[in-house]
Amino acid sequence: MADTEDYPITNRNRLRRKHERGHYDRETVYVILDAAMICHIAYVSDGQPYCTPTAFWREGDTLMWHGSSASRMIRAQSNAVPVCLTVTHMDAIVLARCGFNHSINYRSVIAFGHASLITGEPAKLHAMDAFLDRYFPGRARAVRPPSAQEVKATSFVSMQIEDASAKIRALPVHDEEEDYAVPCWTALLPIATTVGAPVECERQHPDADRARDGLAAWREGRRLDEILTETAATYAQ
Amino acid sequence: MADTEDYPITNRNRLRRKHERGHYDRETVYVILDAAMICHIAYVSDGQPYCTPTAFWREGDTLMWHGSSASRMIRAQSNAVPVCLTVTHMDAIVLARCGFNHSINYRSVIAFGHASLITGEPAKLHAMDAFLDRYFPGRARAVRPPSAQEVKATSFVSMQIEDASAKIRALPVHDEEEDYAVPCWTALLPIATTVGAPVECERQHPDADRARDGLAAWREGRRLDEILTETAATYAQ
Repeated sequence: MADTEDYPITNRNRLRRKHERGHYDRETVYVILDAAMICHIAYVSDGQPYCTPTAFWREGDTLMWHGSSASRMIRAQSNAVPVCLTVTHMDAIVLARCGFNHSINYRSVIAFGHASLITGEPAKLHAMDAFLDRYFPGRARAVRPPSAQEVKATSFVSMQIEDASAKIRALPVHDEEEDYAVPCWTALLPIATTVGAPVECERQHPDADRARDGLAAWREGRRLDEILTETAATYAQ
Repeated sequence: MADTEDYPITNRNRLRRKHERGHYDRETVYVILDAAMICHIAYVSDGQPYCTPTAFWREGDTLMWHGSSASRMIRAQSNAVPVCLTVTHMDAIVLARCGFNHSINYRSVIAFGHASLITGEPAKLHAMDAFLDRYFPGRARAVRPPSAQEVKATSFVSMQIEDASAKIRALPVHDEEEDYAVPCWTALLPIATTVGAPVECERQHPDADRARDGLAAWREGRRLDEILTETAATYAQ
């Protein structure tokens, strides 16, 4: 599937307003998804909606996430239930001279599909390695391999994206012409999520190698979305 | 309602695993909610779950959020539908010597209730002021007051928290004793969301006053969760 091909526009992913912010092409959707580690997943169990945060990753048009085999989410999602997976990057707060023009600059994706449990040892082992290597390229080879008990206790769910939409707002302060006379302080306040200085394990092995063990991109002070974009590209190669 | 009183433990908010991470007291739930501006809301429309990011705030046991009157979310949520509102703060990535012990330190709240549209001009005007003052104390008085048309075009939804749970993970690197011999680099990688240098409006009014107009707490480099915790306390006074 070409990255530039659009997702179908359906009743559920079609933007109802602010159409100029909407994107339905895979390239835009992928870029926003690949800049994130955490998503929020909505699903329904016994008529009750749940919204669960979890770490996820993308392989082509497939999204995968992790959970304990004992969790409510995994039990509810193992049976091809419809789910909605959302990623949100908050980029700035936009202040204005009236309440109505206050806003947030953001990048978000809402993706729809059906969840299914990843079964079979080869597929589970692939998921366990991918879950490390996608964020920390090469790390799966550096760690102690998973035990049979760990494989059994870990569950992964996958979802083929059936349709999705991206929304991007990236606008400066704007007010109605007559409001510029209001003496109210206005600005765009940038928001960024960054990685701090690592707190190394006190029992660090003398032969441990930060770059070899998958952390080359994870330098102190870098933006998390930039690191994840970089490691996603490395992983996809 | 005393802040220390617990929410009822029900089938939907009871933690199914990692019980030691769970909290059901209002104080813990409030602290995590008040450190956030963005939540994700799950709701169901025609059997399809949706997960929508939005800005929200708390007043006692009531959560409120904003939307356009034309949006799918507001139309779906205006009729006392069950919703699940989730807030997640990602605090650190925890690296380990086996895949199974990799983790994320986080603080999250999952709150359940029924959404209802805020109706009537006094209640809507209160919500419009609160939506500014809760984040930027005093700002509602500094901006141009909302027009009748803006009041009409803006919708707010409120939800009384019926039950909720908080989950907190704040643990250092930990491995099985025999795995400390694995020469794999391990550390805790702190993650923080901060505010950058404001990009002031090019048409800033000469009498504009950053502190008076609600931005005293929003200093460059500060953590967003700390700013929001501080302004929530100011707003609650």
